[in-house]
Amino acid sequence: MAITGRNEALEGPIRLGMVGGGKDAFIGGVHRIAARIDGKFNLIAGALSSTPERALESGLALGLAEDRIYSSYKEMAIREARLKNGIEAVAIVTPNHVHMDAAREFLKRGIHVICDKPLTHTLTDAKKLVKSAEASDALFVLTHNYTGYPMIRQAREMIASGALGKIRLVQVEYAQDWLAEAADPDNKQAAWRTDPTKSGAGGSTGDIGTHAFNLASFVSGLEVETLCADLQAFVPGRQVDDNAHVMLRYEGGARGMLWCSQVAVGNENGLRLRIYGEKGGLEWAQEDPNYLWYTPFGEAKRLLTRGGAGTGAAAARVSRIPAGHPEGYLEGFATIYSEAAEAILAKRAGKDVPSEVVFPTVQDGLKGVQFIDACVRSSARDSAWVKFA
Amino acid sequence: MAITGRNEALEGPIRLGMVGGGKDAFIGGVHRIAARIDGKFNLIAGALSSTPERALESGLALGLAEDRIYSSYKEMAIREARLKNGIEAVAIVTPNHVHMDAAREFLKRGIHVICDKPLTHTLTDAKKLVKSAEASDALFVLTHNYTGYPMIRQAREMIASGALGKIRLVQVEYAQDWLAEAADPDNKQAAWRTDPTKSGAGGSTGDIGTHAFNLASFVSGLEVETLCADLQAFVPGRQVDDNAHVMLRYEGGARGMLWCSQVAVGNENGLRLRIYGEKGGLEWAQEDPNYLWYTPFGEAKRLLTRGGAGTGAAAARVSRIPAGHPEGYLEGFATIYSEAAEAILAKRAGKDVPSEVVFPTVQDGLKGVQFIDACVRSSARDSAWVKFA
Amino acid sequence: MAITGRNEALEGPIRLGMVGGGKDAFIGGVHRIAARIDGKFNLIAGALSSTPERALESGLALGLAEDRIYSSYKEMAIREARLKNGIEAVAIVTPNHVHMDAAREFLKRGIHVICDKPLTHTLTDAKKLVKSAEASDALFVLTHNYTGYPMIRQAREMIASGALGKIRLVQVEYAQDWLAEAADPDNKQAAWRTDPTKSGAGGSTGDIGTHAFNLASFVSGLEVETLCADLQAFVPGRQVDDNAHVMLRYEGGARGMLWCSQVAVGNENGLRLRIYGEKGGLEWAQEDPNYLWYTPFGEAKRLLTRGGAGTGAAAARVSRIPAGHPEGYLEGFATIYSEAAEAILAKRAGKDVPSEVVFPTVQDGLKGVQFIDACVRSSARDSAWVKFA
Amino acid sequence: MAITGRNEALEGPIRLGMVGGGKDAFIGGVHRIAARIDGKFNLIAGALSSTPERALESGLALGLAEDRIYSSYKEMAIREARLKNGIEAVAIVTPNHVHMDAAREFLKRGIHVICDKPLTHTLTDAKKLVKSAEASDALFVLTHNYTGYPMIRQAREMIASGALGKIRLVQVEYAQDWLAEAADPDNKQAAWRTDPTKSGAGGSTGDIGTHAFNLASFVSGLEVETLCADLQAFVPGRQVDDNAHVMLRYEGGARGMLWCSQVAVGNENGLRLRIYGEKGGLEWAQEDPNYLWYTPFGEAKRLLTRGGAGTGAAAARVSRIPAGHPEGYLEGFATIYSEAAEAILAKRAGKDVPSEVVFPTVQDGLKGVQFIDACVRSSARDSAWVKFA
Repeated sequence: MAITGRNEALEGPIRLGMVGGGKDAFIGGVHRIAARIDGKFNLIAGALSSTPERALESGLALGLAEDRIYSSYKEMAIREARLKNGIEAVAIVTPNHVHMDAAREFLKRGIHVICDKPLTHTLTDAKKLVKSAEASDALFVLTHNYTGYPMIRQAREMIASGALGKIRLVQVEYAQDWLAEAADPDNKQAAWRTDPTKSGAGGSTGDIGTHAFNLASFVSGLEVETLCADLQAFVPGRQVDDNAHVMLRYEGGARGMLWCSQVAVGNENGLRLRIYGEKGGLEWAQEDPNYLWYTPFGEAKRLLTRGGAGTGAAAARVSRIPAGHPEGYLEGFATIYSEAAEAILAKRAGKDVPSEVVFPTVQDGLKGVQFIDACVRSSARDSAWVKFA
Repeated sequence: MAITGRNEALEGPIRLGMVGGGKDAFIGGVHRIAARIDGKFNLIAGALSSTPERALESGLALGLAEDRIYSSYKEMAIREARLKNGIEAVAIVTPNHVHMDAAREFLKRGIHVICDKPLTHTLTDAKKLVKSAEASDALFVLTHNYTGYPMIRQAREMIASGALGKIRLVQVEYAQDWLAEAADPDNKQAAWRTDPTKSGAGGSTGDIGTHAFNLASFVSGLEVETLCADLQAFVPGRQVDDNAHVMLRYEGGARGMLWCSQVAVGNENGLRLRIYGEKGGLEWAQEDPNYLWYTPFGEAKRLLTRGGAGTGAAAARVSRIPAGHPEGYLEGFATIYSEAAEAILAKRAGKDVPSEVVFPTVQDGLKGVQFIDACVRSSARDSAWVKFA
Repeated sequence: MAITGRNEALEGPIRLGMVGGGKDAFIGGVHRIAARIDGKFNLIAGALSSTPERALESGLALGLAEDRIYSSYKEMAIREARLKNGIEAVAIVTPNHVHMDAAREFLKRGIHVICDKPLTHTLTDAKKLVKSAEASDALFVLTHNYTGYPMIRQAREMIASGALGKIRLVQVEYAQDWLAEAADPDNKQAAWRTDPTKSGAGGSTGDIGTHAFNLASFVSGLEVETLCADLQAFVPGRQVDDNAHVMLRYEGGARGMLWCSQVAVGNENGLRLRIYGEKGGLEWAQEDPNYLWYTPFGEAKRLLTRGGAGTGAAAARVSRIPAGHPEGYLEGFATIYSEAAEAILAKRAGKDVPSEVVFPTVQDGLKGVQFIDACVRSSARDSAWVKFA
Repeated sequence: MAITGRNEALEGPIRLGMVGGGKDAFIGGVHRIAARIDGKFNLIAGALSSTPERALESGLALGLAEDRIYSSYKEMAIREARLKNGIEAVAIVTPNHVHMDAAREFLKRGIHVICDKPLTHTLTDAKKLVKSAEASDALFVLTHNYTGYPMIRQAREMIASGALGKIRLVQVEYAQDWLAEAADPDNKQAAWRTDPTKSGAGGSTGDIGTHAFNLASFVSGLEVETLCADLQAFVPGRQVDDNAHVMLRYEGGARGMLWCSQVAVGNENGLRLRIYGEKGGLEWAQEDPNYLWYTPFGEAKRLLTRGGAGTGAAAARVSRIPAGHPEGYLEGFATIYSEAAEAILAKRAGKDVPSEVVFPTVQDGLKGVQFIDACVRSSARDSAWVKFA
């Protein structure tokens, strides 16, 4: 470990709006902290709720000027696009079923979109949104935030460099227990996440399975060809899966397993990824994100640490402080915002987005929705192997 | 923790023979240590190899009298059965394809059998052996040694007592890496374990998958109804699976996943079991066997330790030393021998085997071979759900 | 774990200046992120370096207006105090020997001071600074950042509530290895930290020992009465200690040990605290800060997690995201800034600082310098027990 | 990991007697298992208690012939020395104050002694016993059993080979909590261990501190020159220390800390050793004994495992099973017996003890008693630095 500084170069910060994320929301607050950490955004407008009073109250609490507080994302998109100092980017942090409509309003006006996952609540919507994003000059950034962890970047870099040889196995899991019982009707987070009209056909598959699925591909560099799923709703009356067992076959012959669960008692946010190749293995767990276990075949296991010996440029790029000073979930999330900012600033300057800037895109979002869809279809067909539709 | 003693009551030790386990064998030596730890057996005869010189050399090295060293298990069974002080029990530690024939020679002469797993190399043999065992007065003990770990007994007792409520999920895995490359032809262990004529149709499924499968049922108290498997031989030229992904459906609605692999680089002997019920969760890992993680739903996770606070009678029965003094693999294995000894001594005394004495039986062995068979059949049918045959 | 939101209430942010922290500095950047995370400060002025060009370059990179960039902290204090929208608070992040003079310039003009630790490089200075702080209406906040970790707050609350009974033992250590070899002369961080004219008489004792010492008292609620130290400079030519062994006697009869080292190879930032009372024990490690191990005597060890079951109000107050989503070093540091902000906003509003707002003060800073001084004196007297001077 | 066998070569087993270790004793049972594991001893005689009925009952329970059961160790020594097939070695597992007298009875008759630690309850006795041992042809083996762990042998070998460079720091601790409250008068283990007339002047220092002290020297290869101690009896009425803080100065300039405690709530048997040199660091914990953490300076930390990659001959010599199959406390203890057996068999054959055979000797025992004595003297002199007397 060396104690060294890291210099900032804060160009004029990016003017940011937000859709959703009003009072009591969970992920909206996370996005706001993430946007602040590296100082590259200023939140100046918001349609934080579709209820006017709630939108106003929430906006004022965040220090927004009253005339930049909206109760309609459409109104916000229209007006902000016309303002001289209108927002350059918008964060969409609503329940899933709102993503597509909201995003399209901004995309078509050239406002960059930073959108929470999963991309949409239906596959049809996802495909429409892909078209809209592709038709727009604006960027579309999906906040698969776990891709922002430095040791995830490290793992990805190692695999891309061949350190593991040809990949054979991808074992990924995401276990929680917060839905182990029927949700309290007052719990808004639980309510919409288990309502298929808002979250989509996937429950745990959509809420957390997509993260696991995305992370496995992000790190391994591999795409799933077919999958075979057994979905279950253990809690009586639940309309979406709260547990999913999935077997995966990747292009090139690698195999995998994905388990996601929201009823695995004793698991808080247990996203864990293990990848094994002909020459080595890697293991990482989200709850201890500064560590990456690396075993070159036939040698002792090594504990790589963020900022520590044996780590490379990809991790260092997105790391803020020295080894032994743990970075967490918010910093990983902030990295998605920082990557977005790098891309937006390049756009602003009329330059290409630098090649080292990496963030999940609308295409990754589509794959996530295809993953949910494939899980649901396979499970309905007695766990037949299915391709992405 | 309390530092307290544990008294021994060594009745006349049981006269033991061994089939297999000659020079350079792995598991034979493990059986011998296991038999010695609690002082309840005396090894006095052996057919340690079918090669006479090797049998003799191996027997002498173990201190056997020359006239109790055999090169044929059949000869040993016949002669020992006639001797006044002949063996009372035999440990069979050969490659799998020999188990059935050897076991039957002893069973039919009333000599108790302690047999390594998997039970046999074919399902046909397994069923025959079940009949032989059932027809015999002698005991049949299968060394699924992991069932001997105190914290496994603890987990089993907790689940049986309802501490976890109705079980929903059984996640079990057994990952190794010692076959990640084509085995050296000089490695006898690797050679027979990857030769289907000796090990059977399952590779990793037979060698380690059966352990995982057995342990999951032993602890959960649940039986698998159907399974769906994707088997793979990653190493070119390998004739049996070296990796298996399996989804499980248990009686009563629980679901599970089983992963076994011998190519997961960085894993030495990674048998890990996690069981989740409506009211709690348990997690255990073989490489750290003195720990059991227990989370009652809505409470903090607890680290139960062998001999420590919060552990019960089932674990204490099979524990030798106080908390904080780790017991290991050999002690767990020894417990199988001690349980066998308890049962044999009861038989010797004309008593019933005490109800608290627990060991894997020939029926468990049959289930293990059925598991291998079902995995192979399901995988051949594109991962269809199959029942045990 | 429950996934729930946490609402922000961003009043007009506090206008902040910074002394030190120019290009290539380490801790200045940390302070800036910490100040941003909760959105309660705006950095608007800086005397980031005493070299004018460097000050200018660093200020511009941070987006400061050119007329708010200074190369003299005195000039900054004078001018900002006169401005209508001048800074309300200043962060002092220079090497230790500058702290006192800089702080006094702001304190005497009623500008709140947030100062890095240790308080000063000499005990004489520390005492002077205490007087200045006491004579000022402005607040003095010392960034013993580790006190901002939620699980440290949890531990403190548990001990204060009597959960551990009377405290017997305080074992604290802070091990690093970055100075295991003679520092590269180009390493500015290493250079001033091993130069007694800049860092003070303590090396590891000052740089990290003070953190350990402070944290032990913060959590235990106990003050050291006497200590006995054995200091060593292992690296040839080093003028300050790079390792310290210290025995502690606390008021009320508790005993402790403190070890700090910058030559313990394999340790990155190993601050670890263990406290044992008559009724229970607690264990915490900075590198895994979201966990707190709690053992009530005679019960199983429990793993308390940030946001998880069994944690209380003190931790929740300073926690941002749900359990299982790790918070890190920067969030803990940000909590010091947030606590400072709460106090400053109360002052601004003419109110008392709320009683739940907790941060290290100038008095804590004095104790830290007394600790260094006592270690040096004891070690010079062959490890005699000494009191604080 | 390779799955390979390990061959036994059981020469005629050594005839063993035991002094102490009757019904309800703790350490006697441990010695018996340890003696059995590798099959090199036969327990054939015992003076298991000084109470005749208890001696008889205990002996019969262990399967001893009635004429080899004694209630006086002296009688046993005299008679066994005369028998043709009398014992060759004796295990002395009584409370400390009996060690010297018992050992001398056997030593003077040429019977090898395997004695529990600490060597004696007084320094005077220890010195006498050294003389007796030196005057005898018989071997004296002290069961500092933790030296038998394979990864301890590994650490020792690495340091001896220079892998860590010159040693700077030795941090050792041994924390328990079983005496956190006044002991139940019925607890025999607690009773004699806190009675200075039986255990000696040291409480925790004698019972566990000696283990820590011995292990630190065994691994580091260094001898303590002076120490400085602060002893405490936290439990009211306790006559011996239940906690000790000790600073150590080793020959050649290394420094160390030793902490032992029997009141650290939440610690079961927390013996932990960390050694840091100029070129690397090692960390080991008794409760997870199959792991050794090794950091070469400037490289990633490596997890060495018993039997795993990167381990050498010294560990392999005393290891029984492959990596990933945990060995525990009993196996480590058994290694002391196996080493003793190797030495005894060499003696029996008129050969030199092979140089690779390593076990703690009477000299190590003397150092342990000197350590206790020095701690007590230093503490009485207000933690002055003292030499061994």
